[in-house]
Amino acid sequence: MPQHLLTNFITYIAGQRLFDPSQRILLAVSGGVDSVVMAHLFKQAGFSAGIAHCNFQLRGEESLRDEQFVQQLAATLDIPLYTTRFDTTAYTQRHNVSIQVAARELRYQWLEEVRQREGYSHLATAHHMQDSVETALMNFCKGTGIAGLHGILPKQERIIRPLLFADKDILVAYAALHQINFVEDSSNITDKYTRNFFRHQIIPRMQEVFPAAVKNMDNSIQRMREAEILYQESVARHRKRLLFKKDNTWMIPVLKLQQTVPLQTVAWELLKDFGCSVAQLQQVLQLLHSESGRYVETGTHRIIRNRAWLLITPVEQADAPIHVIDSPSENVRYDNGQLHFREQERGQAAIPTAAELAWLDAARVSFPLILRKWKQGDYFYPLGMPKKKKVSRFLIDQKLSLPEKEKVWVLESAKRIIWIVGMRIDDRVKITSGTKNILAIALKNRD
Amino acid sequence: MPQHLLTNFITYIAGQRLFDPSQRILLAVSGGVDSVVMAHLFKQAGFSAGIAHCNFQLRGEESLRDEQFVQQLAATLDIPLYTTRFDTTAYTQRHNVSIQVAARELRYQWLEEVRQREGYSHLATAHHMQDSVETALMNFCKGTGIAGLHGILPKQERIIRPLLFADKDILVAYAALHQINFVEDSSNITDKYTRNFFRHQIIPRMQEVFPAAVKNMDNSIQRMREAEILYQESVARHRKRLLFKKDNTWMIPVLKLQQTVPLQTVAWELLKDFGCSVAQLQQVLQLLHSESGRYVETGTHRIIRNRAWLLITPVEQADAPIHVIDSPSENVRYDNGQLHFREQERGQAAIPTAAELAWLDAARVSFPLILRKWKQGDYFYPLGMPKKKKVSRFLIDQKLSLPEKEKVWVLESAKRIIWIVGMRIDDRVKITSGTKNILAIALKNRD
Repeated sequence: MPQHLLTNFITYIAGQRLFDPSQRILLAVSGGVDSVVMAHLFKQAGFSAGIAHCNFQLRGEESLRDEQFVQQLAATLDIPLYTTRFDTTAYTQRHNVSIQVAARELRYQWLEEVRQREGYSHLATAHHMQDSVETALMNFCKGTGIAGLHGILPKQERIIRPLLFADKDILVAYAALHQINFVEDSSNITDKYTRNFFRHQIIPRMQEVFPAAVKNMDNSIQRMREAEILYQESVARHRKRLLFKKDNTWMIPVLKLQQTVPLQTVAWELLKDFGCSVAQLQQVLQLLHSESGRYVETGTHRIIRNRAWLLITPVEQADAPIHVIDSPSENVRYDNGQLHFREQERGQAAIPTAAELAWLDAARVSFPLILRKWKQGDYFYPLGMPKKKKVSRFLIDQKLSLPEKEKVWVLESAKRIIWIVGMRIDDRVKITSGTKNILAIALKNRD
Repeated sequence: MPQHLLTNFITYIAGQRLFDPSQRILLAVSGGVDSVVMAHLFKQAGFSAGIAHCNFQLRGEESLRDEQFVQQLAATLDIPLYTTRFDTTAYTQRHNVSIQVAARELRYQWLEEVRQREGYSHLATAHHMQDSVETALMNFCKGTGIAGLHGILPKQERIIRPLLFADKDILVAYAALHQINFVEDSSNITDKYTRNFFRHQIIPRMQEVFPAAVKNMDNSIQRMREAEILYQESVARHRKRLLFKKDNTWMIPVLKLQQTVPLQTVAWELLKDFGCSVAQLQQVLQLLHSESGRYVETGTHRIIRNRAWLLITPVEQADAPIHVIDSPSENVRYDNGQLHFREQERGQAAIPTAAELAWLDAARVSFPLILRKWKQGDYFYPLGMPKKKKVSRFLIDQKLSLPEKEKVWVLESAKRIIWIVGMRIDDRVKITSGTKNILAIALKNRD
């Protein structure tokens, strides 16, 4: 019932503890029906909100029309508005990424910037039940474990999705009931072909035989989220039972692991933290039946059969060259070229955008720095992104080839990655209005 | 690769421990490609097998053609053959069930009879990966927990599915490679419209975007089976932590349950064993916030809020009338009529098929008998079925209306149901070739 949407909306936010009514929320509004209804609901509920709109300038007049529409919406609802325009096409070329990746990165970087700068506690997106169901169903088709079936989550770090409880049809009906205008949803540009295919070709066919298919699948998803909690409880117990640490080495008793049921899943949960890939898992399980001395090497660790134990040790530093930089007065020569360091006052200079220059807030960087190759398990907060990201994932999105990936180095300070060298700095060390001194690093390629 | 099908088949049977190579397996063979390839694989592997074929006589000449085809197959493979013909249409009318239910019941009853009589250890059906994936996907669309996503299981009591590892396409390719003939699969008559819709309309569309969708979904299913084991481990721990028994009463501490995460799923797993339905679960959870004395009554138990505890007690016997029958010389008058008991020698008389007459093996029935209404949680082994069935499920398949269901009584011996009165006897007390004396029970309706 669209009449109950507002009540259900408030109830959902409270039940899922998405935010406290005293907090200010930044709403990502494209102008499509979902995000426009979300803005109206925030207003109706009396929550304090601002609207942020990105113009990707990909559809000419239409992009402009959407921007103007959202301006009018903000004025009507009397809510602060933040807009920006991106040269999305230039970004795809500069970073060699697809339109989808470009739009997503630009959008989240900017939204997070606005959120922090303007003091909003969370960023709200208008994902609804249908979106979540599509995600779970696509994951099921791609092959997934229990985590892949929990759909889109209501809350992840600073992002909240307060419309996940609502069926798309209800949102449309609510807009009709209250004569709310909207534009054709432009958010689809960040969607993939596959999602639209599921949305328009597959799910409607499911609804022919199960009219409540979307609601039912959402129900399955809810139950899967709860099942996942119980699953993780058991995994934690198996980890405690099977994994022991001694100095720098982790140890797993062979016999105990052999007898563990279910072996595949428990072994995977234990070993993935040590850089083990899905393919390598089977090699490691073969160690359970091999003689002493055999080993498997992951990106980060060596897993060695040693009598009754599997020993897991970090790959020796000799294998993975590391440069220690003790002070900004050093320049460093390494495989890919040289790094030059310089400290300077903030001043009025514009922050350079060139990828080979990193300007960091000197107060947030502490020496010594470590320069090393990236490895599986590494993560960082890409500049402007609201949540952490695996470096492996970041490199995929950057469309690097395998040989290119192997040449990627990272710079660490106090065990945190501060720069994917030549590509992207970490958000936590970026220059802000409070920055006094800058650590400027320049990558000069080997001549 | 169809070339590797035989190896994969033998490996799968060994890996899943479906049966021991020394055991004899009865194969359910319709004549369709799946079951015919299964028969060939058993022969090629050198396993000892027999073929059983049911002619449902639903498609005239075509049914006869299939029967003859399977006769020829058995002769070619030099494997024992058992065939039967059913008057399926008459069965649907007599038992007021659908063609699908009739065919399934007749089939499994007869197959189990043959299996027992001829001394086969297991019954093998030719379900393959595609069947399993369809089942899981349909369950996801209907709304399900983790158990609904494990697909068709490789082994359930006496039934095994040794082709679950195989994609349908591989079976077809194997038949082509080895020039194996088959008839159009008639097993579809036991399939529902919905399954065929998923098979022909939905999954092929998924394969347009994910060509490996079936294999991928099967992979998801495998992982879900393992995840389910870990899930059940956690459920068992919560049960131990939350459920205490004192005399005839189970007790759950309110505060501990309130604080349990995830509440819905854990509460459901604890309470479903006490006859609690999905709808009642929410009522029970409301008891966590109610005053003492409030209660919810399930089909079998009363769940009472009593200060810091939920108390779970069986519904008082006074509420549910029970008749105790001490010897076969008694006749019993009850709500629905009278039961007359008589003991007699086996003799040559044909076993009556009328639903109001139950002829049981007297040696397998021990007095006193209990006559009572059926209740949630009851189960029995319907005559001729290879596995136990919930009475609730049986009554649904019999298409009884709610008022009709409420009038169903069962007869118990030594805490086992031996007769759903006026409907179906239990397989474990049926007359066999070893029966010496018969306990004949007749239901006479109230005049």
